[in-house]
Amino acid sequence: MDPIARYLEDHRDQFLEDLKAALRIPSVSTQPEHREDVRRCAEHLAAHLRGLDMTRVEVMPTVGHPVVYAEWTGAPGKPTVLLYGHYDVQPPDPLDLWQTPPFEPTLRDGKLFARGAVDDKGQVYAHLAAIEAHMKVDRKLPVNLKLMIEGEEEIGSHHLGDFIREHRSMLDADVIVVSDTGMPGPDQPALTYALRGLLYAQIEVTGPARDLHSGHFGGAVTNPANALCGIIAGLRDGDGRITVPGFYERVRPITPELREMFRAAPFDEAAFMRESGAPAPFGEKGFSTLERTTARPTLDVNGMWSGYIGQGEKTVLPSFAAAKVSMRLVPDQDPDELAPRFEAYVRKLAPAGVTVKVAGLRGCPPFITDPDHPMLEAARRALARVWPKPAAMIREGGSIPVMTTFQQTHGLPSILMGFGLDDDQVHAPNEKISLTSFYGGMRSAACLYEELAKV
Amino acid sequence: MDPIARYLEDHRDQFLEDLKAALRIPSVSTQPEHREDVRRCAEHLAAHLRGLDMTRVEVMPTVGHPVVYAEWTGAPGKPTVLLYGHYDVQPPDPLDLWQTPPFEPTLRDGKLFARGAVDDKGQVYAHLAAIEAHMKVDRKLPVNLKLMIEGEEEIGSHHLGDFIREHRSMLDADVIVVSDTGMPGPDQPALTYALRGLLYAQIEVTGPARDLHSGHFGGAVTNPANALCGIIAGLRDGDGRITVPGFYERVRPITPELREMFRAAPFDEAAFMRESGAPAPFGEKGFSTLERTTARPTLDVNGMWSGYIGQGEKTVLPSFAAAKVSMRLVPDQDPDELAPRFEAYVRKLAPAGVTVKVAGLRGCPPFITDPDHPMLEAARRALARVWPKPAAMIREGGSIPVMTTFQQTHGLPSILMGFGLDDDQVHAPNEKISLTSFYGGMRSAACLYEELAKV
Repeated sequence: MDPIARYLEDHRDQFLEDLKAALRIPSVSTQPEHREDVRRCAEHLAAHLRGLDMTRVEVMPTVGHPVVYAEWTGAPGKPTVLLYGHYDVQPPDPLDLWQTPPFEPTLRDGKLFARGAVDDKGQVYAHLAAIEAHMKVDRKLPVNLKLMIEGEEEIGSHHLGDFIREHRSMLDADVIVVSDTGMPGPDQPALTYALRGLLYAQIEVTGPARDLHSGHFGGAVTNPANALCGIIAGLRDGDGRITVPGFYERVRPITPELREMFRAAPFDEAAFMRESGAPAPFGEKGFSTLERTTARPTLDVNGMWSGYIGQGEKTVLPSFAAAKVSMRLVPDQDPDELAPRFEAYVRKLAPAGVTVKVAGLRGCPPFITDPDHPMLEAARRALARVWPKPAAMIREGGSIPVMTTFQQTHGLPSILMGFGLDDDQVHAPNEKISLTSFYGGMRSAACLYEELAKV
Repeated sequence: MDPIARYLEDHRDQFLEDLKAALRIPSVSTQPEHREDVRRCAEHLAAHLRGLDMTRVEVMPTVGHPVVYAEWTGAPGKPTVLLYGHYDVQPPDPLDLWQTPPFEPTLRDGKLFARGAVDDKGQVYAHLAAIEAHMKVDRKLPVNLKLMIEGEEEIGSHHLGDFIREHRSMLDADVIVVSDTGMPGPDQPALTYALRGLLYAQIEVTGPARDLHSGHFGGAVTNPANALCGIIAGLRDGDGRITVPGFYERVRPITPELREMFRAAPFDEAAFMRESGAPAPFGEKGFSTLERTTARPTLDVNGMWSGYIGQGEKTVLPSFAAAKVSMRLVPDQDPDELAPRFEAYVRKLAPAGVTVKVAGLRGCPPFITDPDHPMLEAARRALARVWPKPAAMIREGGSIPVMTTFQQTHGLPSILMGFGLDDDQVHAPNEKISLTSFYGGMRSAACLYEELAKV
């Protein structure tokens, strides 16, 4: 066993304690009452990094929560790796569904339960362990390393774009590494080479000036709730295809090669559906579940409301109805191009007798990186040294907005090497990280730095 | 001027004070904190009736709020009139929109503003004034009179059906009189001979077992909110016709005579639309606004909710979506026949991947009485003695459930002689009764008793 791997194995208990200490800080970025906790978590992380002999460590302010930045640039001539992660977490609600308190990390059956265990503190601390092993064993890293660990990922990374643009040269690198994604199974590593984008909107329909008596006025005026339902129903056809004109224009077709890749992917559909709790899979005709969730766009209502929503009956004809709607986009769809088309089509679907407003239109482009880039080849070699199976090249259905920002500002290859499992309860009660992922993640990170040094 | 009319005119101030005293009691039937106020209002009304020398006055309990019952049976050989009204009121919310407090009756510009001013305390007290005038001037009434003034009209009269069936013989009568409807204009009296019925339901759609991440699962499972929108959109066609199979089977066609009646009716569509505040009238093709709101059935969403309805964005794929939906029915539609058809059709419209439940299905049949019955002729004669224009025979779009109960238990002709005006803000802030309606209503009631005595 090489000395780095030995160091990681010999210090497992200490690494677990390091992670637990970070998990005890409730760095909930969306809740103002945790503002100080978020700050404390940033300082805690910076202190840990200083202990690793980084050449520079700073807690850097933004308009919102701070960014923890660190670098070690002692490998001239070697590639520079920019590592991105986040130290903020989702709110733990609903609290009563947690088996043990969300901010008291607890080990059960080889899994560490806590809010942020896998998303993303556990994955960040796997890298910190890898850094420590290299520094303690070799007194240096195989590559130059920059870390940018932010505190607003769970609230949309709204200030990170400006931060990246303002510190463009500080963040110069040859490759970006992110560990905030998943792997198909506990012994099946993966590299994510595509993420979906997003187009979010709120459709607001106004009819009468105030709530009316449905007996007196029913039949004479357009009901905004009925109108909203008609609009939303009209956004897709019976086969689940989105009907916004030109919506599929830039969608990359699923080639026979890609289809074969999806078919061969280590994806357990039965387990996925069990996890969803839905009675049956359902979606756009002509595509598999894995294709639908990663390589095809979707349109989902995220929330809607109108009129009387209390107990019992109220015969009101509501004045107002609204829905939050989001579309997941795939390469090469462009949210800036689709936003006005979506808005125009919603207006076209609206019946007479109501006014329709499309508010809060906001987009994030889809992300795709070249799976055959030498940097990704290096990542595959690294994973092959640690795991029993070769890395799967996968797409994920969610979005990481910062990836697009990096592509726009830096134009770099990106390695999304993640260790989350499907049953990790991300954003839900009883979030956990499996120790196989935590320890396997450390070794993978340590090997990754070595393999990237060879590119 | 006849002595009855003179008495009514000479005691206007006292009658106004009597009404104000009743309006000061916040008899809000739906709010538990007003339970004692509702009881107090019943006792107050009973005390007033005792002062009018009724032969029997009782505050009679029900499972819910009590019924005030009174009778005067000193006219053997004359018809018996059963007068129905209600002393409970709607909640006054939103309070901040009232120009003067809802339970401090205030006179402005010949209108008395207070919650319950026209719905229905003002109309009940118009009858009480008419009774007083007859009793003081003649020491008797022209007819036998029974009063049943209930305290649960604003919450659906749920216990009144049982009350009526249990006191079937006590309530025996030759004609029913109700003053809880409207008139087309301040000098245009009306008799309402038809009301719409109701079929109310809550559609509940469940998809995934819990809220899911729309990135991870979007595209793979049916979104219950999208599904609900599809169901609701599918309940009507593009022309506004309801598509539930057999829905129109028993709808009485609008005959050329009826259409002419609608055309000639004193209905100010421009004022009606202004009152609604909707940008334009809209409804079932081939019918006028008046026809659509009174002689044609409707289907309206009264409320709906799903997923995240707070500020900002949340990319959730909701587990649950629901809508409250009500249909207004017209003669001779039967809610008991339509309820299972509606439920079956909703299930048929549901896509795969969700379970649909139709909860709380409850109906109230439409009401129609013979406009040419001698009792209604008598009512027209009474109104002709008071108002400058002959009475319009109108239909109203709302429902009064008790009318159907009466028709089922008693099978009597019914006189709906109401004095509400379109701008009375019923169920809304700044409810009022115009003094022209209050004083005209008293004289109309006094004349009605006299004319009914002649039938």
